[in-house]
Amino acid sequence: MHHPVEIVEVAPRDGFQSIAAPIPTKAKIEIIEGLIDAGLRRLEIGSFVSPRAVPQMADMPDIARHFRSDSRARLSVLVPNAKGAEMAMTHGLREIVYVFSVSEAHNQNNVRQSVQQSIDGLANVVSAISNEPDFRLRVDLATAFDCPFDGAVPFDAVRAAIERVTDLAPACEIALCDTTGRATPFAVQERMRAVQRLAVPPSCTWAFHGHDTYGMGVANAFAAYQAGIGVLDVAAAGLGGCPFAPGATGNTATEDLVYAFLNSGISTGIDLVSLLLVADRIAAIPDAKVASHLRNVPRAAMQERMRQP
Amino acid sequence: MHHPVEIVEVAPRDGFQSIAAPIPTKAKIEIIEGLIDAGLRRLEIGSFVSPRAVPQMADMPDIARHFRSDSRARLSVLVPNAKGAEMAMTHGLREIVYVFSVSEAHNQNNVRQSVQQSIDGLANVVSAISNEPDFRLRVDLATAFDCPFDGAVPFDAVRAAIERVTDLAPACEIALCDTTGRATPFAVQERMRAVQRLAVPPSCTWAFHGHDTYGMGVANAFAAYQAGIGVLDVAAAGLGGCPFAPGATGNTATEDLVYAFLNSGISTGIDLVSLLLVADRIAAIPDAKVASHLRNVPRAAMQERMRQP
Repeated sequence: MHHPVEIVEVAPRDGFQSIAAPIPTKAKIEIIEGLIDAGLRRLEIGSFVSPRAVPQMADMPDIARHFRSDSRARLSVLVPNAKGAEMAMTHGLREIVYVFSVSEAHNQNNVRQSVQQSIDGLANVVSAISNEPDFRLRVDLATAFDCPFDGAVPFDAVRAAIERVTDLAPACEIALCDTTGRATPFAVQERMRAVQRLAVPPSCTWAFHGHDTYGMGVANAFAAYQAGIGVLDVAAAGLGGCPFAPGATGNTATEDLVYAFLNSGISTGIDLVSLLLVADRIAAIPDAKVASHLRNVPRAAMQERMRQP
Repeated sequence: MHHPVEIVEVAPRDGFQSIAAPIPTKAKIEIIEGLIDAGLRRLEIGSFVSPRAVPQMADMPDIARHFRSDSRARLSVLVPNAKGAEMAMTHGLREIVYVFSVSEAHNQNNVRQSVQQSIDGLANVVSAISNEPDFRLRVDLATAFDCPFDGAVPFDAVRAAIERVTDLAPACEIALCDTTGRATPFAVQERMRAVQRLAVPPSCTWAFHGHDTYGMGVANAFAAYQAGIGVLDVAAAGLGGCPFAPGATGNTATEDLVYAFLNSGISTGIDLVSLLLVADRIAAIPDAKVASHLRNVPRAAMQERMRQP
């Protein structure tokens, strides 16, 4: 009856970039190690971006080197262009994420490009990885529901973006991102069902990326799952947010979503006790803005719950 | 496609009783008035209980008197026994709520009675209201998913409780209450579907009462709605909790759930801007423990969202 779920941890990328003060490379690596040890099997571990533009990611080569021969989990990095994709390949990564926004206004604010320029950039990225066997591409469609500048994003705009993406990359995972956290579970369910009805190549798959700013985090992920989506993005401790989406204070907390799947008959493979210890460590990073429910529950009360059949 | 939703506001009962310091009667009345003005059409406005046991409800007669001829909304009160039911009728109420727990341990801690004693008490309440035409009874089944003392509550225990209730009161609304907030959306959806398959009198109807302690508040209410349940309990500002359920810090916030239904095609009839002003007032009550997402979002960002079609 239930389809499998893949929890994608984005705190080391979407989360760490939201913290202005530098995080020691050693701490980043230990946190990623802790997340893998807790059972996470897909993680975005950072970005190959210009250190001038995003100084928080300047140590990306060192982190990539540490995890180079690690086969425990699927590790990906965000890349803004073909150069980033080359860097990812050079450093032994087998999976990259490319982001652009469905809405012009947010794309301009987020990556200083028009949507068309971003699609041209995607073509260059696809070209850069085209000779690399078994290399995975994910495309994150930011503002796939709602834009902080333009408001509601029409489904036609999402469909048009998906058509452009699948023309260039028939075998990619496309994530619809609720960048602002303003989408409701009804909207998520409807839109995630709608994209699955589109005529896309059979090797194109789907994901949902949500935020908990409006308290819809778990509800929206559950709605996406109910709509048939198995790949769900979260960030341990609820770390994250988008600097160009006012009020978007945090990704949905990994621990909250993992809790939602407890005793559901659907295995996440993640140990909640271990995960919470890593989430505590993330929350202790200076200037970290976190938003988790489970971390605020007395641990004893929760562990009793986790022992239940 | 969608069935209607009835949002039931319980802050003046489940919420106010959680605040130790006395709240002036005038403030309580103004808050209830504010909630009705915001569009709430069902509210639990307090309890007819012993002022010695629950001093916070000692002004219940004054509050009942104020709203005696108010026909704008369905107003109910919680009663622990037949005497409370008589008080409610004397004061012009047309609707009462009777609570007991499915689990023995929580019922003993909450109302100092065995489940059997509580069911006998329900028989007395039913008898007290039996000659009153068009008088409504709701039965809240506390710990219908999980007990703070006994852990997971088996469905057989819930079914047995429902059978006892419907034997005594064929025409009542039965609320399954996630008292601890530990239920997950999968569990809520499964159990709310299961109760609707039980052989109960056709005049028996269903409701869901949830808490947001574990971050499942909106997700669980959405899951209940998806399972066909139209009556959902919430408390403005997320005020509430159960003194005998450790870690149960707050009801699901009315504003968060109302937000979830925005633009869904399902009308709650509630104006979010007005509701948030009342939630702000509730949050300002000394010692109020609140838990709302929407109240933490910059109001300007949210109002932009609320203007969307």
